[in-house]
Amino acid sequence: MTDVRVAGVGLTHFGSHPERTGRDLFAEAVLSARQDAGVPPADIEELNVGNFVGSLAEGQSHQGPLLAEAAGLSCPATRYEEACASAGVAVREAVRTVRSGEADVVLAGGMERMTHLGTDGATRALAIAADELFEIRAGVTFPGAYALMATAYADRFDIAEDDLNTDLAHIASKNHDHAIPNEYAQYQRKLTVEQALDAPPVAEPLGLFDCCPITDGASAVVFVSEEYAEANGLDAGVAVVGSGQGTDRMALQDRASLSSTPAADDAAAMAYANAGIDPADIDVAEVHDCFTIAEVLAIESLGLYEQGEGLSAARRGETTADGEIPVNLSGGLKAKGHPVGATGGSQIAEMTRLLRGDHPNSDAVADADVGVTHNAGGTVGSAVVHVLEVAE
Amino acid sequence: MTDVRVAGVGLTHFGSHPERTGRDLFAEAVLSARQDAGVPPADIEELNVGNFVGSLAEGQSHQGPLLAEAAGLSCPATRYEEACASAGVAVREAVRTVRSGEADVVLAGGMERMTHLGTDGATRALAIAADELFEIRAGVTFPGAYALMATAYADRFDIAEDDLNTDLAHIASKNHDHAIPNEYAQYQRKLTVEQALDAPPVAEPLGLFDCCPITDGASAVVFVSEEYAEANGLDAGVAVVGSGQGTDRMALQDRASLSSTPAADDAAAMAYANAGIDPADIDVAEVHDCFTIAEVLAIESLGLYEQGEGLSAARRGETTADGEIPVNLSGGLKAKGHPVGATGGSQIAEMTRLLRGDHPNSDAVADADVGVTHNAGGTVGSAVVHVLEVAE
Repeated sequence: MTDVRVAGVGLTHFGSHPERTGRDLFAEAVLSARQDAGVPPADIEELNVGNFVGSLAEGQSHQGPLLAEAAGLSCPATRYEEACASAGVAVREAVRTVRSGEADVVLAGGMERMTHLGTDGATRALAIAADELFEIRAGVTFPGAYALMATAYADRFDIAEDDLNTDLAHIASKNHDHAIPNEYAQYQRKLTVEQALDAPPVAEPLGLFDCCPITDGASAVVFVSEEYAEANGLDAGVAVVGSGQGTDRMALQDRASLSSTPAADDAAAMAYANAGIDPADIDVAEVHDCFTIAEVLAIESLGLYEQGEGLSAARRGETTADGEIPVNLSGGLKAKGHPVGATGGSQIAEMTRLLRGDHPNSDAVADADVGVTHNAGGTVGSAVVHVLEVAE
Repeated sequence: MTDVRVAGVGLTHFGSHPERTGRDLFAEAVLSARQDAGVPPADIEELNVGNFVGSLAEGQSHQGPLLAEAAGLSCPATRYEEACASAGVAVREAVRTVRSGEADVVLAGGMERMTHLGTDGATRALAIAADELFEIRAGVTFPGAYALMATAYADRFDIAEDDLNTDLAHIASKNHDHAIPNEYAQYQRKLTVEQALDAPPVAEPLGLFDCCPITDGASAVVFVSEEYAEANGLDAGVAVVGSGQGTDRMALQDRASLSSTPAADDAAAMAYANAGIDPADIDVAEVHDCFTIAEVLAIESLGLYEQGEGLSAARRGETTADGEIPVNLSGGLKAKGHPVGATGGSQIAEMTRLLRGDHPNSDAVADADVGVTHNAGGTVGSAVVHVLEVAE
């Protein structure tokens, strides 16, 4: 087993890019990642791409070879799909491939185009991450599903409606604050707690600003073996030291509880065992806040908070940029945006930038050594967790 | 690196199953594979599933956790999509995961339901394996694309129309002969060369019997480490000793040649290097004959024939059950059927049965030691090759 290093990362702007193709977005991300890494195309041995709704949104499947070609690569290329964790599993396989010595250089990332579908179209397309037979036919959409989870959480921990809404609004406001300096973010603008509280409801208790936006974008990360980095004099000071994946029952109705996410518990436990760390070692986290309540469930599954304690962390100022354990310094899915199949790669890219010191929010974590990323599929029917560490 | 063994295989009947769900079909295949292997659900550490058009055909994505649940598994589960090679890449990752020691027991397979779409619907759905921008919008469908490849082949090797048609008809007839005793096959019936030649044209020079059918079905294979097989007293006498994957430009217009398949050349070279064999060592092959011409291109890419020599191999009786190197003893995609996302797993299952002696056509290869499988995506924009060997 070799040490796996992040040699370079690339992102497109996250936002609305109706005039661009998916292959064009992905090629931009790969070019950035390759330039950041200083790795020529011929050295890339495998390409793993995450994409979720391309067959509905672009009439395009078989994106492995398509995106390889667009990015100027001719290596074996595979598409991974795990709903909103598609790039998470693509990254995980890249990490394992380098770690096992199967390859020295693997590029992983993802791409999604959704804004051209409109809100209604995108909501319908995203629904295929739920159980068609027992959820979609019954009218489940993801805002509705996460609203059920938020309600169950408040019920279980006996949280008053006002407190729930205010706590969630603080999460949204925090992530908007974090996104302001991030040049890749969809919303580089302030959102006050009052604005979040005053927003129109989407699926109560979730309002408009509890929900991440619909986004186009792409991400790419070059993973290399320590030996390759040394032999080629690469500046690759961030290592991926742990990777974990978990699975849960697909439909909410089959879960033992709606207020916790065992797939993410499992993924975190596996990643931490891998890395030889425990939650107390973690300095910073990027988590899958597709809805504000999802951030709460994520930081509890990651062991950063006990169950029932994560909800008010942002309001208490603990997960803000100047808090003890900043969460979603990128702006998160909430404010940076959520091009679904790209998100898991974007989290690795943002965490790498944070840890190596060239992220606009790096100052907030100047002494950080260990970062964790958490990428979830559907209502956390699947989850992928990675642990990144400053290696030198 | 450990030796990777096939502990058990499972297949559903390939055919038209409009009354069944995809999860139901997959669960049946997994149960069969587990029973064949003698491996309990709790020992399965990872599940890799191939599925191609589920988001269009069933309104269902995120099939990893869905199919895990249906099969009674709670391990990490990931969907792989590489068009018609979806299960091929799922298998390849399973093999690499066991080989690297990341896991001792990984289940890989796939599932597809398509017959309920009808011919027109299925043809449109399958088209998303082609390039949406430069092929699909121009009207390309797969029968048309492979017809172009057949024409280019005949043109390059100066083959008269009658010879081309007759050679291809012999491939179809051979694969139907092979399927007759195969209880999983969609078409357990004879097809004469004359019937194939008299069939209505689909996309000239390809007639109806040059095309594989539209199929529902599922496949599952349990891969284990040699150590696990020994420790648990499993009868796992077939090893996967080589795995390779290749990628080509996506659109036919961007290829250097329409009469060869470099992605499969690359996949074969990688798998053979892996296995330490060369084409002369191969005793039997299962190849991706979505169209009869595809079998020709496959056996040439596998190095079983020189370019231009593969076309008439069936007519010469070399790839028939009593030939030197039987090809598609299962019946192939042509007669056994092609539930797209399941096919790569089915090939491993059939080859395992052939090599261990419990396939209805095993007598044809009683002395065989080495078998190769070839699974292709689209017009061979991607390809996966595996080498299986009798281990004891």
